[in-house]
Amino acid sequence: MNKPDNQQKAASAAVTPRAQDYSQWYLDVIKNACLAEHSPVRGCMVIRPHGYAIWEKMQRELDDRFKETGHENAYFPLFIPLSFLTREEKHASGFAKECAVVTHHRLKSVNGEIVPDPESKLEEPLVVRPTSETIIWAQYKNWIQSYRDLPLLINQWANVVRWEMRTRLFLRTAEFLWQEGHTAHATEKEAIEETWRMLDVYADFAENVMAVPVIKGRKTEGERFAGALETLSIEGLMQDGKALQMGTSHYLGQNFSKGADVRFQNKDGQLEYVYASSWGVSTRLVGALIMTHSDDAGLVLPPKLAPVQVIVIPIYKSDEERVRTVEEAKKVAAELKALGVAVKVDDRDGIMPGAKYYEWEGKGVPLRIEVGPKDLEKGSLCIARRFVAEIKGETPEAQRKRRKAFLPRAEAIASIVPTLAAMQGELLERARNLRTERTRVIDKLEDFEKFFGEGGGFAWVHWAGDAAQEDELAKRFETSIRNIPFEDQIPAEAKGEGVCILTGKPSKQRVLMSKSY
Amino acid sequence: MNKPDNQQKAASAAVTPRAQDYSQWYLDVIKNACLAEHSPVRGCMVIRPHGYAIWEKMQRELDDRFKETGHENAYFPLFIPLSFLTREEKHASGFAKECAVVTHHRLKSVNGEIVPDPESKLEEPLVVRPTSETIIWAQYKNWIQSYRDLPLLINQWANVVRWEMRTRLFLRTAEFLWQEGHTAHATEKEAIEETWRMLDVYADFAENVMAVPVIKGRKTEGERFAGALETLSIEGLMQDGKALQMGTSHYLGQNFSKGADVRFQNKDGQLEYVYASSWGVSTRLVGALIMTHSDDAGLVLPPKLAPVQVIVIPIYKSDEERVRTVEEAKKVAAELKALGVAVKVDDRDGIMPGAKYYEWEGKGVPLRIEVGPKDLEKGSLCIARRFVAEIKGETPEAQRKRRKAFLPRAEAIASIVPTLAAMQGELLERARNLRTERTRVIDKLEDFEKFFGEGGGFAWVHWAGDAAQEDELAKRFETSIRNIPFEDQIPAEAKGEGVCILTGKPSKQRVLMSKSY
Repeated sequence: MNKPDNQQKAASAAVTPRAQDYSQWYLDVIKNACLAEHSPVRGCMVIRPHGYAIWEKMQRELDDRFKETGHENAYFPLFIPLSFLTREEKHASGFAKECAVVTHHRLKSVNGEIVPDPESKLEEPLVVRPTSETIIWAQYKNWIQSYRDLPLLINQWANVVRWEMRTRLFLRTAEFLWQEGHTAHATEKEAIEETWRMLDVYADFAENVMAVPVIKGRKTEGERFAGALETLSIEGLMQDGKALQMGTSHYLGQNFSKGADVRFQNKDGQLEYVYASSWGVSTRLVGALIMTHSDDAGLVLPPKLAPVQVIVIPIYKSDEERVRTVEEAKKVAAELKALGVAVKVDDRDGIMPGAKYYEWEGKGVPLRIEVGPKDLEKGSLCIARRFVAEIKGETPEAQRKRRKAFLPRAEAIASIVPTLAAMQGELLERARNLRTERTRVIDKLEDFEKFFGEGGGFAWVHWAGDAAQEDELAKRFETSIRNIPFEDQIPAEAKGEGVCILTGKPSKQRVLMSKSY
Repeated sequence: MNKPDNQQKAASAAVTPRAQDYSQWYLDVIKNACLAEHSPVRGCMVIRPHGYAIWEKMQRELDDRFKETGHENAYFPLFIPLSFLTREEKHASGFAKECAVVTHHRLKSVNGEIVPDPESKLEEPLVVRPTSETIIWAQYKNWIQSYRDLPLLINQWANVVRWEMRTRLFLRTAEFLWQEGHTAHATEKEAIEETWRMLDVYADFAENVMAVPVIKGRKTEGERFAGALETLSIEGLMQDGKALQMGTSHYLGQNFSKGADVRFQNKDGQLEYVYASSWGVSTRLVGALIMTHSDDAGLVLPPKLAPVQVIVIPIYKSDEERVRTVEEAKKVAAELKALGVAVKVDDRDGIMPGAKYYEWEGKGVPLRIEVGPKDLEKGSLCIARRFVAEIKGETPEAQRKRRKAFLPRAEAIASIVPTLAAMQGELLERARNLRTERTRVIDKLEDFEKFFGEGGGFAWVHWAGDAAQEDELAKRFETSIRNIPFEDQIPAEAKGEGVCILTGKPSKQRVLMSKSY
């Protein structure tokens, strides 16, 4: 079916330029691309078809990677009995605050008004899962008896709820969609390897699918997941210079297996608590995607995540031209589909080509093919790219030519797949360059202050302060330690020992600081 | 990764024969195949990896069909404000009873005990969605202004909750997974066409993927979805002679668009309420699959829904034999994978081949390939089928030969894809035959009583009673009108007019009656 639904009707409002108001730009991009919107339920968003299609592509890519690394999907209950949350002490204090609590199981009509039936009050309230460690480990108790039952490598795709007062589409909502991996291992070594492996899976996905370069590292103690011995993260840099935590992987040690009393008989016949990891990414990644690549014309999508990679638009004046150009557009689409390209024909009548261009640009479609009567005569096609890599010193005229080219038909068709691949690479390159531009190795507090006063970015900083001093820095500059990057993540110019930027104490390595979402 | 996780360890308990205790048989099949189990949360089940993999295959097949018919996926909030449920009067009374009600959004520690914080009480309670018509139509109000915005063809994959006291794995649980399509149309005709089209999609899926034959028809007024003008259903017949409603498609008229005040400007420039349909199938289909095909050895899966279609088992005594047979098993698997077959090698050491056969049979894997040292010498493979079609008068010996054959290697490999296709067809055929055997055209109440006293099945019965008389019949025989089948669903011997089996009043056509889940 080529007829786009109303989700795809021409965008009506212009996008606020980033330089003018970054927050409004973000909302405008989402609105114009029909990705999501607020719902009448406080804190909950509606993910519209175009936004959901991007999430589906992310899911497919991630799910394939999870399965390749030996994981299986399963599904656990939405509700967690209140008492379960108290089983792991740190977890309880870290998570048990802002939750949706189910207290009744029936409604009743009282004087024409529907209210929770007081007689249906639950003996034990249920919490809508904010994360599933406790309920899943209660089940693992039935599944794990011996080392032969391990490792247990399970993932769940699900919705979770963490009550939020100040929400932001995709980045922070009360309900969001995510995946949560929960694995069980016979040894600490294996569980730690799993924790690191899944962070690598996330980093690979971020860079090679989302085209978002990330820094891998450990979170500081204060930023660890409630109940984890170690939390690893990948951190991306958004266009406004703020970091976004894009995924986390936790080594949980025996905390949750002790909480749920999950022991196994090891090879020596002794009972031992199981070692655990958990790891997750969420619809927040759609926010990261938007904020890394999009521009003042709206959404920009890496071809690997574009639900529509190529839009074909027939251009005509008369009915006779319409018939011929639509026919050719469909032929072109069929040929591209056979090459594995996600292609759509926009043959809606009554909408001017310019409006269509504008709409599909706003939706981030990487390539547009225009099919006009002259193209038919000449046997050519016009191919327009959503973006081109910047070339320093290039004239606007020269850049326009690279953005929009008329090619002989066969050559044009043959160019699509390699062009999409090139664009995928160019986006990653562009994001890397932007990150480099906004990254500093900083040794003095005054330079730190200046950098973050002027917008900021990633700062490689020596740190040896305590938690209170971390808070102090956060209050003064709105910055935080994003993570303590792994050795191989540190650029040459930031390597080596030094002294803490705040306390002057010796420091073994630099950490990654920035403002953040 | 070939190492099966603990989900796939050898089944330990035998399956209760159907003839002895059908309900226990159902539970045993589920347990032995590691499909699902009860959770500590009342009414909520855990779907284990093998069960979830079947659901994923169902999802993929259905989702492809939804997209082929022009639908897009989206996601709407889990929570519905209480007031929304009262917007459509019939819907409210039909659904607003057994719901999970969220009343608080924060927990608090009081004397070491965690309780809902009284200060976090919500002004308006939220209901965990039992179905999403009301919340989705509230959103459609923003999306629909003109006939150009229509049709709006949206589907959602989600979890829903309907509080249930008496649960049964897959068939009736408080939380379940499903898809719900919600479409908006400019005309009654289009909305009705959509309602019928999606029922056809379900019927096609049931028969051609699940290998479960179904009867399509309309529900009686009393059985309609709350708020629908017409509810269509597909009904399958399980092995115990009870019907299972496998999917429903509702024509909603303007009920929900009026409730949410969704009007559009039609081509004549007039404001009109939008016409709607909704349709859904759920994880209940996994229950239907189990109860249609499985036998006393456990789960039987149609090849199109088998997460593992072929299990390859090396058979060896010495280490030297182990190396050679495992190597050959992996080669065979690689060749089958290249043919598009979902194949797995079970090379777990320390488990006897017989135990492996038993385990994979219980999990419903259609084909088993055994690779022993003699097979290597002879250049042959042993192929065992999970089931064969019954041939009347065949000796057990002859049937055994059809179940397990030694074939030259190349021939064996080449036979796999056609054998899987044949088995898919045989399952449908077997289910059709079973249905035919258990279907009667009944004209007298005494025959009706006798039929259902002896186990029952589908009864084609003339009916002209009212709702009270329908209830009377239900009380006496535990039967109900499954649906009023479409004309083309009625077999020749059941066609034509007649008189009501209870009242003797004239009846235009027979309806489908049976006991049901």
